[in-house]
Amino acid sequence: MNFCHHCGQRVTLRIPDGDDRERYVCDACGTIHYQNPKIVTGCLPVHEDRVLLCRRAIQPRLGLWTLPAGFLENGETTTEGAIRETWEEAYANVAIEGIYTIFNLPHISQIYMFFRATLADLDFRPGAETTDVRLFAEHEIPWHELAFPVVRDTLEHYFADRKHGHFPVRVGDILIPRNR
Amino acid sequence: MNFCHHCGQRVTLRIPDGDDRERYVCDACGTIHYQNPKIVTGCLPVHEDRVLLCRRAIQPRLGLWTLPAGFLENGETTTEGAIRETWEEAYANVAIEGIYTIFNLPHISQIYMFFRATLADLDFRPGAETTDVRLFAEHEIPWHELAFPVVRDTLEHYFADRKHGHFPVRVGDILIPRNR
Repeated sequence: MNFCHHCGQRVTLRIPDGDDRERYVCDACGTIHYQNPKIVTGCLPVHEDRVLLCRRAIQPRLGLWTLPAGFLENGETTTEGAIRETWEEAYANVAIEGIYTIFNLPHISQIYMFFRATLADLDFRPGAETTDVRLFAEHEIPWHELAFPVVRDTLEHYFADRKHGHFPVRVGDILIPRNR
Repeated sequence: MNFCHHCGQRVTLRIPDGDDRERYVCDACGTIHYQNPKIVTGCLPVHEDRVLLCRRAIQPRLGLWTLPAGFLENGETTTEGAIRETWEEAYANVAIEGIYTIFNLPHISQIYMFFRATLADLDFRPGAETTDVRLFAEHEIPWHELAFPVVRDTLEHYFADRKHGHFPVRVGDILIPRNR
């Protein structure tokens, strides 16, 4: 950030009065430009004993498999965002069952939230950011071709919890960028 | 937003290519300025049968009682933010028990997250944004002087769930600004 988006003058990085961390501050108009983490919201779409994954058509992790998810938009609830992203990436209609996993990724200032969901039909197909959409049974999951640790962790929790039919909400921290 | 914070030129509000909603776009340098919801993270601090509330020294809802909470900062986990806010507002040391309530407030693009927590000691005192900090038993809760619906809902869930000793994660939408 170089300029104030309110008045267009240059900003400086400094600790404002009464604060305890550096912010971009406009000394011309006084605006303090706070920057905060973003939420990524998505679904774990299930049909009978299989789960839906999307093969990524975009960077990062092009060609790897992921759960449908993306940035929450202003004016949305987290469930609305999860349903929208599942439609955009896989044209899949889902019914939300409940919140399931929450991951803190402080190194990139993102919070992931995945909801368990049931597919309403099987008319899914790839969206613009996806090259392939498929249902996978547990033994078919491409564990070494998953795009992100949050996807692997969510799937691992799901298949373990499914044995007991009980899906407690899981909160986890992903503290180091991992390439698995 | 009037100016691009990258190059300082004027921005226009329009739908970028390949997108489906309006963004502030800089036609000089091409930067698209995405705006996304913010997370407010906080605690429900408990000591034996009482809960800690803070009386607000600032607007909005000056003089009303709230749970300690505030905006999650970049680089923080949601639990770290909840612990920090509880310290800043009440100088209270807490041990986090687990995520408890999550509220979507789409009309102001905020997501609230409250964690159940146990007070580590009773050396709390008001922080800069607080005029009073007190422990309240259920029958002492100032229900008509609570600052926000998310605080009332979290307390209502807590006292109901406490009867059974089971605290499932609650997700709720607060769809209309309410003044209760």
